[in-house]
Amino acid sequence: MTGSQNPNSVAPAGFGDRHIGVSAQPHVHHMLTALGFGSLEELSAAALPESIYTTEPLGLQAAVSEEAMLAELRALAAKNTVNKSFIGQGYYGTHTPGVIQRNVLESPAWYTAYTPYQPEISQGRLEALLNFQTVVADLTGMTTANASMLDEGTAAAEAMALMRRNNRTASPDAVLLVDADVFPQTLAVINTRAKAMGIPVLVHDFTADDAGLPDVEFFGLLLQYPGDSGLVRDIAPVIAAAKAAKALVAVAADLLALTLLESPGALGADLAVGTSQRFGVPMGFGGPHAGYMAVRQGLERSLPGRLVGVSKDAAGNQAYRLALQTREQHIRREKATSNICTAQVLLAVMAGMYAVYHGPDGLRRIASRVHALARGVAVAAEAAGHTVVHENYFDTVRVRIASAGGHAAAELVAAAHKAGYLLRQLDHDHLQIAVDETTTEADVAALASLLAGRAPETGHGTGSAQLPAGAAGAVGAAGAALPVPARATPFMVNPVFHVHNSETQMLRYLRRLADADYALDRGMIPLGSCTMKLNATAEMAAVSWPEFANLHPFAPAEDTVGIVEMATQLEEWLAEITGYDAVSVQPNAGSQGEFAGLMAIRAYHVENGNPDRNVVLIPTSAHGTNAASAVMAGLKVVPVATDGFGNVDIDDLKRQLSVHEDRLAAIMVTYPSTHGVFETSISTICAMVHDAGGQVYVDGANLNALVGLARPGKFGADVSHLNLHKTFCIPHGGGGPGVGPVAVGAHLAKHLPARELGLGSSVGLVSSAPYGSASILPISWAYIRMMGPDGLLRATQTAILSANYIARRLGDHYPVLYTGAHDLVAHECILDLRGISADSGVSVDDVAKRLIDYGFHAPTMSFPVAGTLMVEPTESEDLAEVDRFIDAMIAIRKEIAAVKDGLWPAGDNPLANAPHTAQCLTEEWEHPYSRAEAAFPAGVDPRAKYWPVVRRIDQAYGDRHLVCSCPSIEELAEAN
Amino acid sequence: MTGSQNPNSVAPAGFGDRHIGVSAQPHVHHMLTALGFGSLEELSAAALPESIYTTEPLGLQAAVSEEAMLAELRALAAKNTVNKSFIGQGYYGTHTPGVIQRNVLESPAWYTAYTPYQPEISQGRLEALLNFQTVVADLTGMTTANASMLDEGTAAAEAMALMRRNNRTASPDAVLLVDADVFPQTLAVINTRAKAMGIPVLVHDFTADDAGLPDVEFFGLLLQYPGDSGLVRDIAPVIAAAKAAKALVAVAADLLALTLLESPGALGADLAVGTSQRFGVPMGFGGPHAGYMAVRQGLERSLPGRLVGVSKDAAGNQAYRLALQTREQHIRREKATSNICTAQVLLAVMAGMYAVYHGPDGLRRIASRVHALARGVAVAAEAAGHTVVHENYFDTVRVRIASAGGHAAAELVAAAHKAGYLLRQLDHDHLQIAVDETTTEADVAALASLLAGRAPETGHGTGSAQLPAGAAGAVGAAGAALPVPARATPFMVNPVFHVHNSETQMLRYLRRLADADYALDRGMIPLGSCTMKLNATAEMAAVSWPEFANLHPFAPAEDTVGIVEMATQLEEWLAEITGYDAVSVQPNAGSQGEFAGLMAIRAYHVENGNPDRNVVLIPTSAHGTNAASAVMAGLKVVPVATDGFGNVDIDDLKRQLSVHEDRLAAIMVTYPSTHGVFETSISTICAMVHDAGGQVYVDGANLNALVGLARPGKFGADVSHLNLHKTFCIPHGGGGPGVGPVAVGAHLAKHLPARELGLGSSVGLVSSAPYGSASILPISWAYIRMMGPDGLLRATQTAILSANYIARRLGDHYPVLYTGAHDLVAHECILDLRGISADSGVSVDDVAKRLIDYGFHAPTMSFPVAGTLMVEPTESEDLAEVDRFIDAMIAIRKEIAAVKDGLWPAGDNPLANAPHTAQCLTEEWEHPYSRAEAAFPAGVDPRAKYWPVVRRIDQAYGDRHLVCSCPSIEELAEAN
Repeated sequence: MTGSQNPNSVAPAGFGDRHIGVSAQPHVHHMLTALGFGSLEELSAAALPESIYTTEPLGLQAAVSEEAMLAELRALAAKNTVNKSFIGQGYYGTHTPGVIQRNVLESPAWYTAYTPYQPEISQGRLEALLNFQTVVADLTGMTTANASMLDEGTAAAEAMALMRRNNRTASPDAVLLVDADVFPQTLAVINTRAKAMGIPVLVHDFTADDAGLPDVEFFGLLLQYPGDSGLVRDIAPVIAAAKAAKALVAVAADLLALTLLESPGALGADLAVGTSQRFGVPMGFGGPHAGYMAVRQGLERSLPGRLVGVSKDAAGNQAYRLALQTREQHIRREKATSNICTAQVLLAVMAGMYAVYHGPDGLRRIASRVHALARGVAVAAEAAGHTVVHENYFDTVRVRIASAGGHAAAELVAAAHKAGYLLRQLDHDHLQIAVDETTTEADVAALASLLAGRAPETGHGTGSAQLPAGAAGAVGAAGAALPVPARATPFMVNPVFHVHNSETQMLRYLRRLADADYALDRGMIPLGSCTMKLNATAEMAAVSWPEFANLHPFAPAEDTVGIVEMATQLEEWLAEITGYDAVSVQPNAGSQGEFAGLMAIRAYHVENGNPDRNVVLIPTSAHGTNAASAVMAGLKVVPVATDGFGNVDIDDLKRQLSVHEDRLAAIMVTYPSTHGVFETSISTICAMVHDAGGQVYVDGANLNALVGLARPGKFGADVSHLNLHKTFCIPHGGGGPGVGPVAVGAHLAKHLPARELGLGSSVGLVSSAPYGSASILPISWAYIRMMGPDGLLRATQTAILSANYIARRLGDHYPVLYTGAHDLVAHECILDLRGISADSGVSVDDVAKRLIDYGFHAPTMSFPVAGTLMVEPTESEDLAEVDRFIDAMIAIRKEIAAVKDGLWPAGDNPLANAPHTAQCLTEEWEHPYSRAEAAFPAGVDPRAKYWPVVRRIDQAYGDRHLVCSCPSIEELAEAN
Repeated sequence: MTGSQNPNSVAPAGFGDRHIGVSAQPHVHHMLTALGFGSLEELSAAALPESIYTTEPLGLQAAVSEEAMLAELRALAAKNTVNKSFIGQGYYGTHTPGVIQRNVLESPAWYTAYTPYQPEISQGRLEALLNFQTVVADLTGMTTANASMLDEGTAAAEAMALMRRNNRTASPDAVLLVDADVFPQTLAVINTRAKAMGIPVLVHDFTADDAGLPDVEFFGLLLQYPGDSGLVRDIAPVIAAAKAAKALVAVAADLLALTLLESPGALGADLAVGTSQRFGVPMGFGGPHAGYMAVRQGLERSLPGRLVGVSKDAAGNQAYRLALQTREQHIRREKATSNICTAQVLLAVMAGMYAVYHGPDGLRRIASRVHALARGVAVAAEAAGHTVVHENYFDTVRVRIASAGGHAAAELVAAAHKAGYLLRQLDHDHLQIAVDETTTEADVAALASLLAGRAPETGHGTGSAQLPAGAAGAVGAAGAALPVPARATPFMVNPVFHVHNSETQMLRYLRRLADADYALDRGMIPLGSCTMKLNATAEMAAVSWPEFANLHPFAPAEDTVGIVEMATQLEEWLAEITGYDAVSVQPNAGSQGEFAGLMAIRAYHVENGNPDRNVVLIPTSAHGTNAASAVMAGLKVVPVATDGFGNVDIDDLKRQLSVHEDRLAAIMVTYPSTHGVFETSISTICAMVHDAGGQVYVDGANLNALVGLARPGKFGADVSHLNLHKTFCIPHGGGGPGVGPVAVGAHLAKHLPARELGLGSSVGLVSSAPYGSASILPISWAYIRMMGPDGLLRATQTAILSANYIARRLGDHYPVLYTGAHDLVAHECILDLRGISADSGVSVDDVAKRLIDYGFHAPTMSFPVAGTLMVEPTESEDLAEVDRFIDAMIAIRKEIAAVKDGLWPAGDNPLANAPHTAQCLTEEWEHPYSRAEAAFPAGVDPRAKYWPVVRRIDQAYGDRHLVCSCPSIEELAEAN
């Protein structure tokens, strides 16, 4: 018997009961009783400050069933038209190998995993990411690639920042020199970021005949290779000249082209950026996909984002983990050089596996075919009397249309559209045609017809149209006329790229890697501040639908009516839920949303004649990204103290407000606080800041504690960013994708990111694509639609219930660090191990690793307070799983006591030696505890046991011996 | 660099290179060299007898890529029209829960598994099947249900056979009494089987007012409940009367209705049959889905098919395995009482999980809603002036249409069809409307409009049409007027049906069960005669497409053009591949195909005036199903001896031919033989049998050794059945679904199974649906289309290459029992352990279980020769995996030697104790070998280790203490 359902009702079981783990009425009652409350409503009213608590129902449509939701979503999908794209410009059709689609993109073992901060339970995705890094480093000719970037535009912007801070000789006024042949969206994102950072940007045309370097001091140069225009030129001379001028050089390069073209590294560049989208990741109307950045030796410690490296475990065996974490924003805070904290792991895994599956020969074959088909297009264009602008190209052919009329290009583009093909129009007589892996000879034949002014015989794909003779010759003569500079350096020589080339082998490789990892499909991931809730299958379904997956982000508006309508509805729903007036889903990570929100505040102050308002107050307990984003937005970070209860210290706030007076731009607070507490003074804080002329930024990281109970936009905040990958069910994907919409009050609406390239916003683009990671927005859309106002409310209430139940049951064993009114926490609780650690010598790390032996992912460690564990159960965990976790923590507490009491020595006990692999059970055993105590402690069902494949990993070793690509056979031999 | 691909070619990598594991030219060369051949062609020509070997290419279209294949298949799918079915008649719309669709139906861990004959590596699917059995047994009120039947029709036919052989008092002339209200397709299948077995069938109308038992001796009675007409009546009196007449009573019952209606068991029946399709398995144009059979206490040892039971392992822990295998046809051969050897495991798992997910309350709620909506339809029909024929019904409303015209029903059905609804017309003024889980109130409103002679306002599903007031009342008043006899007995009380009701819980349950099992996604399954090859994702894709999945098998022909075209093409391609003239894909298992083939032979002899030709010669080495199928087809089995080389003993064949002279119907041989050898005398055998007036039946079980190299229909055979789940890539699904097309020469074409109910064939229907398990036919269609003639040929050549490579490399360690010309085997080889076992005391069982420790599924054990292992690698395994297997077998051979040499005692060694669980490593260890030797023997990568969750299972214990449903808490407590 379930909570919201009467078995005598004719209504089928609702999605809410499937999503919420604690739905059975007796379980709800049991937990409420433990807390002394009679109903969920009573509990909520007690937990939240009266000043923000609302019982007004959300203005959303009532919940519908999974099937009804899918029917509505299919109707929206049907409003899109998937024409075959030849637009290019950084987005290409690609074939996702079925084995990768089904066993990565559609596999909960991959998509429900968390970021691999606990490397012992993440060896599978770490190995997959190492493959990705190796592919990128090899193809770009660099020594080190990171584990992915958000997209090409943001990667280029990060390259700008990296070059700026690594060029120690250039003056502060030196410009960033940008190739005029760069993708326009890349330039737009660079401009947004450069403006915030105060960096001047100079666009220079290197394609002019007399291309040389302009007479200006520049700290860095960004080239596109091949160019936006399709042109492939030898960039070595320009790179050499720039290096001679002591500038750094970044090359935005196409990975598929690099299988045929000499690598940026070999040509002398310092770093390379780009996207791996065309390695098996659908265009998805712009995202998500994995951008990349790779650097030459010497710059690896400046890489933003995440970096997987090789280290070793306690048994001396090779093991992977995130390297060089000291670079990361969450540690560097206001000293951070980047605010990125999400990568695009799931998509990087897909792209890496695409490369593993095809191997270097397969990739070269795909590239050669693409080039041959492009040559076919060029021959057909010339046969029809047009001019092919560039002689040397890879996949993109720029054509000058021969015609007396003034709209020749437009007419041809329109005719192609009518025939089902999307071409890219440049001006009245130029267009471009970009070929990709999905292009067929029939497509080229159809394009040939169109170029000759005839309607093609058939639609795209399956037609039997004939190529013109010359074009057919060009298509047939692969390899005969590859673009130059031809690639001489080898790539992907590691064995991993040569042994998984059959589907059976790939299937088993994916299974083996997935089996090494712990994800939500195995058990609870009680990570405080991460909201690891259910990612329901019905929510995920539409991600694979071609009507969403196969849209080019710059397809004509009439082709994308459905997806824009879906995204717009989602924005409206999020506005209703948060109480704001306008939302943009463009930011493709929380960090991007933060940046966009702060940029809106900056623009607002400028607009109001207060350009000097550039101080942001940030409580010391804040997530490090807050400060990092403020720095990226060109703001000055001033910390505000927190009091003994974890709340903002109102006295210190007063002090700071008076000190910074007219310089105050905003305060950034997280609500409920990063301490997992509903601060009662939130309304006061908002009022104080507003009175001082500042704006209130509420970080939406903890929105899962508020939905349906309180609305930041109504209780005093001006801006929030949300994390759709937390509250709104986008899976964490092992560390991305994320979506970080920015939500603002009406007065800031005009400062949201631009909807179109270069249009309509003072801020500009923050991501490469207008709707960011559009193809995963249906996940959140589906969640909201299936939960309805009642379901969303009950989810929040249940999340609060579960967190408090844990705090109550564990409180006797571990001090709960902070609580709010009525001794209640919000949706998470901090267990304070500092005293216990001091007493026993057992660290939070030991407890986290020991939890692996018990079959759990660790809670959040040492954030926001060092020496603590922050636990967030979410509403999706059921009572049995919550109790299993509590029981494990109590059992561990007893183990700690045994260490403290000297029953086990400090250096040799189940905690210090955790986690235990199956392998270690077969070895000599001289520990003071038994093998059974090691591997099957109380409550562990041997038939449901999760086995890590490595022992505790030595983080420092890997940082001292930095290896960030697949180890060679020799390195492997040495390690073992 | 791959075999068929030149890296300079512009062609993308072909599917053949993905499907065939040994594609890399150096690997092919390595293996050929080991055998002393220079090319695959040389090897094939040497292996096959010249008399059958052909180099003529298959007349099939050239291979296309995965994407092109999918485009063609989508074009076929688009020719279907998915109208919403209200036809009922045993097939209903249902919502497959997304979590089950994605994590069972679309999960390789489930669908690539083999039948759980090795229970230690099959605990997951065995538990899932036990759930299914429990659901069926509980709902039907019986004590024991089996692990599924092929469909309702064949289940009813098996019920007939079971009743016949268990009624020891009835005379041989006693009839089977069949309810006139039985589904017509069920009656058709019964008639086919009854005719073959010589059982008279009498159809009796129990719905007439004065229904009583007819005055005739009957051994058994089959009732339908609810009836085909929708009628629900109290069947208790009829059952009691039949029992009083010493007959057995079977009830074909609807599982969803049984959540509201009293169970057949409680009403006195002996057994129940039916289908679980509507428990989450799409209609699929007729299949596959899981039929069921359940029996009262005392009949369990007569159950056909497979039965999962509870036993215990070597450590005394509860473990599952197939029970009572002595009943099975493969052991009983010509004494068999059924020829079923495939179940519908994957579908039974889905249905069982559907029940686990919804729980008893959820199922009741679904049933109540269905009934309420049916009442709405009835009220609307009466409101429109029509007559509702039955007062008491569950989901199906029979309506007499009020109209002066003679085509009233036809006109209404046509109008409904136009509006997107399929109704079932019975005669000129009767139609039926069957409601199911997918029916919405809008649908009922639309039906109300149609019944009232108006076009409905909107299409199905999403409309906002209003129900007529009366109908709305009926829909709203659930529970108010449930059909009688109302259910009083509880069901699904086991905890498993009460703890997996959230999606998170279900996801984890499915993951945990999958993790217990070994399937093709982990490693090789070298089962001789089972052809465990790749089931490619692209092949599987279309199974989930609504255009195939959501078709009712009796939908109007104009709605099913695409699927019929696809099935017909597949039949044509299979005919080309086998060299026959006609193929029927109707048989939904190999056993069904065999039965159909033998029935065709019988019909042929009758047609030719030889009704007495009823002797079938079957070599002693044949698969037991051959003999069992012959018995089912009413034929007399006469064994033929095999000679010392495993071939048919030609002298004995001569003898038998002369003994049986005019009684000879056919010979059944497997080719290559079940010994894995290409018998050179096959052409001679065919000629001898034909000369004697007999037909030649070639069992197609080993067709994977012939495709492209030889064609049974051309080298002398008249009939074959194929196994699409072997050669043509339909996954084994853990023990089904299977498809067993029957292929015949032109002279037998007219004796293929009927295409329509009661039409066009002397044999009639062999399965309930005209195209059998139609929705999985796209798998084989896709395989053939992507392989093309070249790929199919290379697959066969590679399968032969790998088998011979294994035989050659292992020959020094284990005698290879049979070889043919040039000392070559076909596509599998038999390793003879008899001498080794006699010497050492190590049994084949020990070796099979020890292979689990090495990370392998065992080869086929003791078939066709006791004490041997039969190994079939298939073409999909790559050289590394084949070598890994060989190395494991060699390592095991050394372990056997250590036992023989006394290094390890006979009763305590790694073989005798295999398999080893992780748990056993933590226990007291007093074995003469180490834990590491137990769990990580030579070559086992600890990071890729597969762990069984139980130790060796005690088969006999479970048969002595037969428990075939989920154990209660008490039983669980006792076992542990």
